[in-house]
Amino acid sequence: MANAASELSPSYNVCVVGATGFAGVEVCRLVLGHPGLNLVMATDRKEAGKRLAELYPALEGVCDVVLSLPDPDAIAAAADVAFLAVPHTASLGLTPQLLERGVSVFDLSADYRLKDPQVYEDWYQTPHTSANLLDQAVYGLPELFRSQLQHLAQRRADGEATLVAVPGCYPTATSLAAAPALEAGIVTDSLIISDAISGVSGAGRKPSARTHFCHANESVEAYGVAKHRHTPEIEQTLSTVAGKPVDVVFTPHLAPLNRGLLATVYLQASSDLTAQELQDIYASRYAAEPLVTTLPAGCMPQTGSVAGTARAQVGVALDARRRRTIIASCAIDNLGKGAASQAVQGANVVLGFPETMGLDFAAPVV
Amino acid sequence: MANAASELSPSYNVCVVGATGFAGVEVCRLVLGHPGLNLVMATDRKEAGKRLAELYPALEGVCDVVLSLPDPDAIAAAADVAFLAVPHTASLGLTPQLLERGVSVFDLSADYRLKDPQVYEDWYQTPHTSANLLDQAVYGLPELFRSQLQHLAQRRADGEATLVAVPGCYPTATSLAAAPALEAGIVTDSLIISDAISGVSGAGRKPSARTHFCHANESVEAYGVAKHRHTPEIEQTLSTVAGKPVDVVFTPHLAPLNRGLLATVYLQASSDLTAQELQDIYASRYAAEPLVTTLPAGCMPQTGSVAGTARAQVGVALDARRRRTIIASCAIDNLGKGAASQAVQGANVVLGFPETMGLDFAAPVV
Amino acid sequence: MANAASELSPSYNVCVVGATGFAGVEVCRLVLGHPGLNLVMATDRKEAGKRLAELYPALEGVCDVVLSLPDPDAIAAAADVAFLAVPHTASLGLTPQLLERGVSVFDLSADYRLKDPQVYEDWYQTPHTSANLLDQAVYGLPELFRSQLQHLAQRRADGEATLVAVPGCYPTATSLAAAPALEAGIVTDSLIISDAISGVSGAGRKPSARTHFCHANESVEAYGVAKHRHTPEIEQTLSTVAGKPVDVVFTPHLAPLNRGLLATVYLQASSDLTAQELQDIYASRYAAEPLVTTLPAGCMPQTGSVAGTARAQVGVALDARRRRTIIASCAIDNLGKGAASQAVQGANVVLGFPETMGLDFAAPVV
Amino acid sequence: MANAASELSPSYNVCVVGATGFAGVEVCRLVLGHPGLNLVMATDRKEAGKRLAELYPALEGVCDVVLSLPDPDAIAAAADVAFLAVPHTASLGLTPQLLERGVSVFDLSADYRLKDPQVYEDWYQTPHTSANLLDQAVYGLPELFRSQLQHLAQRRADGEATLVAVPGCYPTATSLAAAPALEAGIVTDSLIISDAISGVSGAGRKPSARTHFCHANESVEAYGVAKHRHTPEIEQTLSTVAGKPVDVVFTPHLAPLNRGLLATVYLQASSDLTAQELQDIYASRYAAEPLVTTLPAGCMPQTGSVAGTARAQVGVALDARRRRTIIASCAIDNLGKGAASQAVQGANVVLGFPETMGLDFAAPVV
Repeated sequence: MANAASELSPSYNVCVVGATGFAGVEVCRLVLGHPGLNLVMATDRKEAGKRLAELYPALEGVCDVVLSLPDPDAIAAAADVAFLAVPHTASLGLTPQLLERGVSVFDLSADYRLKDPQVYEDWYQTPHTSANLLDQAVYGLPELFRSQLQHLAQRRADGEATLVAVPGCYPTATSLAAAPALEAGIVTDSLIISDAISGVSGAGRKPSARTHFCHANESVEAYGVAKHRHTPEIEQTLSTVAGKPVDVVFTPHLAPLNRGLLATVYLQASSDLTAQELQDIYASRYAAEPLVTTLPAGCMPQTGSVAGTARAQVGVALDARRRRTIIASCAIDNLGKGAASQAVQGANVVLGFPETMGLDFAAPVV
Repeated sequence: MANAASELSPSYNVCVVGATGFAGVEVCRLVLGHPGLNLVMATDRKEAGKRLAELYPALEGVCDVVLSLPDPDAIAAAADVAFLAVPHTASLGLTPQLLERGVSVFDLSADYRLKDPQVYEDWYQTPHTSANLLDQAVYGLPELFRSQLQHLAQRRADGEATLVAVPGCYPTATSLAAAPALEAGIVTDSLIISDAISGVSGAGRKPSARTHFCHANESVEAYGVAKHRHTPEIEQTLSTVAGKPVDVVFTPHLAPLNRGLLATVYLQASSDLTAQELQDIYASRYAAEPLVTTLPAGCMPQTGSVAGTARAQVGVALDARRRRTIIASCAIDNLGKGAASQAVQGANVVLGFPETMGLDFAAPVV
Repeated sequence: MANAASELSPSYNVCVVGATGFAGVEVCRLVLGHPGLNLVMATDRKEAGKRLAELYPALEGVCDVVLSLPDPDAIAAAADVAFLAVPHTASLGLTPQLLERGVSVFDLSADYRLKDPQVYEDWYQTPHTSANLLDQAVYGLPELFRSQLQHLAQRRADGEATLVAVPGCYPTATSLAAAPALEAGIVTDSLIISDAISGVSGAGRKPSARTHFCHANESVEAYGVAKHRHTPEIEQTLSTVAGKPVDVVFTPHLAPLNRGLLATVYLQASSDLTAQELQDIYASRYAAEPLVTTLPAGCMPQTGSVAGTARAQVGVALDARRRRTIIASCAIDNLGKGAASQAVQGANVVLGFPETMGLDFAAPVV
Repeated sequence: MANAASELSPSYNVCVVGATGFAGVEVCRLVLGHPGLNLVMATDRKEAGKRLAELYPALEGVCDVVLSLPDPDAIAAAADVAFLAVPHTASLGLTPQLLERGVSVFDLSADYRLKDPQVYEDWYQTPHTSANLLDQAVYGLPELFRSQLQHLAQRRADGEATLVAVPGCYPTATSLAAAPALEAGIVTDSLIISDAISGVSGAGRKPSARTHFCHANESVEAYGVAKHRHTPEIEQTLSTVAGKPVDVVFTPHLAPLNRGLLATVYLQASSDLTAQELQDIYASRYAAEPLVTTLPAGCMPQTGSVAGTARAQVGVALDARRRRTIIASCAIDNLGKGAASQAVQGANVVLGFPETMGLDFAAPVV
């Protein structure tokens, strides 16, 4: 991997904590292909000692990393940067230890996403033991909070270990679908509904009745109705974007695909805007974004177009027949823009790399 | 098939028009297994002369019917009853000819579903050439309009050829999900949103870019946004059930499964009802229905549970966190309760059979 | 379920042991739809006390049976017949107890399939503790061993509790593909190769890394290569059919479908037979079989055509370009003809019902 | 795409002919990500004038190329190299025209793979109109014919336009599975059987009854039995590798996945080699290959591990129970190592790039 460019550009040593989960191994994959990041360590509490490729034969011949235990000192000795792909609460303990040791953290768990620790405790039913870090954590959705990430880049350049809370998959897609309308101030105070569909990898690597092939295949179903933990995260982001509190009902569904997440969001328009005006608002909002594309008028996104990529695609329509309902749909890869590539995109901003470095590959189209 | 029972019960000769489409061949399958119906004719304009089993090898050794052209005189000579599984407009011409010849019609097309011919013409962009039949056509959703079907049974017993407009798949699932709340009068005048997901068989048998395996597989997408033709049908039924006009936004999605349709419907509750009261309303509404089951509180339906069957499963939840939103979800087989078995269920009522005759098989559970 | 026919025909009370596994619940489904069988008991060691429909929501509204523990006395008190859908070795203990108590057994496990207990012990690595029953057990593949099943029917009619060893899924498909050629004596002593593909339900209900949706989906792989336990069962049947020992190499594969099993079998032809002669041998062999269909020349079977059914479809081709290789392919539903419907078909023969009773439904064709 | 490296390394302008087929668009994707190749033209006879991204929304925001007609002069004016992803016979006319104009050709069609034009005419039922080119065409399977490709590199460096016949997908997987055993001389003269399974993208982009989602999904089937056109190509390669004529029976199957191809190959061992010796032969054969991995003993490959990649994985087992049968299995992506990445890998050798340039990305592991 050493090449002429390495003399010119900085490069960072990376540890992936929780490397055997689906999001964790996807971070590993992206780091392996990133010119400025070196995968020097991957950890897993249960599988330490095994080669990562034993668990994921796709990595045979590609990656020889041996899993180790997630020891903060060892991580700090080896790595500049840590990606934490761990269940919620696991990050509460580890993140402070890593920051103290000078390791910048990109946390893919939910532990630092919610600004209000009480909301966290209500929804996750566990104490937030490092709420003091919430102020400095930046919610890593670059298309909405890029300036905060850039500010973090400055602090990191000044020698500070920084913390990015990488957004959840459903909040990412919902936010990208709703943000242009909310930012434009064209939405009433009515309820916002996000009806979303995810592939099965969103349910994680652990085998269960729900992830059994014969259960998930050839079936769709809603789950977590009226109580999914991504709800307050969605409300927090949409309220921030709207500049006022918004109410959200969020319903996730499971569909038989490995990767992919589609959020279809319903918002009520406050004015007599036309479909073309709506399309223009969306098209211009993402025109300069390298990883988010607004599709042409009349086109709605399909998750297959972004599976395996770092990209999001957004489509929007207006149902002006009776009420004036904005229907915005956003497709992402739940493991990409919904997790791992979002984390790397944020890292690119914080570390001073071009934002799409290592993420700018074309999608498999079939 | 001849048995002792045949001496006691009446049996009817059946012609399936458009037998090679997915809904048509499913009607054939159900008729083959129905003790009171005999499949005497199956027609297809393009494939006449072929054995149906040539097109569907699953029928090898099961069904020897040879496809013929859909001639009204031939149909009337052979059959008492015709199931029309044809594209919209095709039924406009054929249905009057069959009724005149004394053949009762169960029409799976959209041609006689909408009571207002103008609405039909607006949405289907074609003249309604037999609007005089709309008054006598009964919308064949037995759980909501059983008494009308029973009235038709009386007329048919009196020698009249009768017409049933078999509902569309999305309207069936949306209506079964929304009806208990609307009937109970617990819903405000707010917009009703139906967000639905269908398997690919809903797109029909004709090969196209959209139905290509490599397009549909591993992807979900919205389609027909703000303009799907099932919208006015949904509004007509929900308005009838509610006893007042309701406004609906309807968004269908395509998911990678053969059969199955899930409608998740959002309604705003008008009062401070509790989740338990809501559950009770739904449970009691369908308690006596043989083919619709309300799942226990906390359970939402999955389409895999009803695939291949004549059944619907309904679940309901209340999101009372900020607003009071009723989230009701209904799973059906789009080719079963969404088309063919619904047609046979309606035929059972009209012909005087037990309503579940030939439809009461247990589902494959894997 | 009580009807006029019940006065004329006998009916039997059935217990399904191991009712929560995929094969067990499929037996339940078939028994529920069988006019001569009553599901009076379903057992499961781990889930006793739960309703079967809790585990399989598809049965909500269809089946109210509550799971119990598999106690031989209780089974004998309630049931005439037991279907054992248990892992191998579990049947070794239970079957003798049931037979002693007068309960006829249809055992879907491997415990009584192999006639030589030493072969069983070699492949299953466990002692065969009731080898004395092997002589009286009949291998329940009606198309090949119908006369033995009919002989059992006589013994049962004489008051004896009887034992049928229901064949494995791969042996069923391989045997049906190879038998016509072997019976006709047109095969050399060369190695016979069975290369088979199964859906994921063949791996059972227990969640595991292999049955996780994200592993099984979008992938095919061979497994159990050169050591799968169905190998000696295949050799035993093919040797019996051929009237001489045959050598078999068997390779199973896993493909991303719920149900379905395809065996493609390679045999070397001993003579200069033509493709037409070969086709005729196969067509005539199964011409009178109600549940096995030889497809027309040039057609090979697809598993989708038999999924959910009790049927098998067979196709055959001759590759006479260099050698003379017979390529015979058989499609079954691994849970149907490969397990549950085969058990019921055998039960029909032994209990004196028409062989296809409860099994003669048309397949879903989409 | 212009960067500092471009001053140091040569780069080549590329035209992809037949860019809208699945293999063609995959070549485009790989060229877009290749540091030494520039996609300057993409052609399609039927879709000229459209943006490629209109047909493949995955390319929205990624690729702005507009499709043009495949005119040899225009291609020669714009491109140094052409990848032809066209149906057989289409290349017979175009390839000579491109070579005459100095454009090196990587032909993904079957037109220049078979060295004997008579064999081509027998199997493809069409005259071979440019058989004079067969001598100079190199069969582009680098792992088996690298020296010939390197020789071509020399000729191209000397100013000659060169021709590579990119192998078919089934021949690639079968050859990689069988070659180590054949090269090692451990195989008898017995028949070699290749039993293979492909994803649906192998059937091409054109919608048809066979590629309809509802046909292909939840089903497996054999096709082209005893007559698939890849058979002589497999025999040619295996005979070359073995140094003597070999006889092959080849049976392809279709399984419900987008991408992926598994060949399970059966060969008879001529000596008393052990499983360990066999494993060693395979492991050492591919030890130095960057894109082919022999899996550890006891492991067989799954296609999911190589989907979306340029890699192959091989596993091998010995069934020494009765005969001595070598069972070797190779997994590839039919559009990758079976088509597009194989073409680019060959181009890398011929153009003097590192062999894995643009192909060395880690696989998505979920």
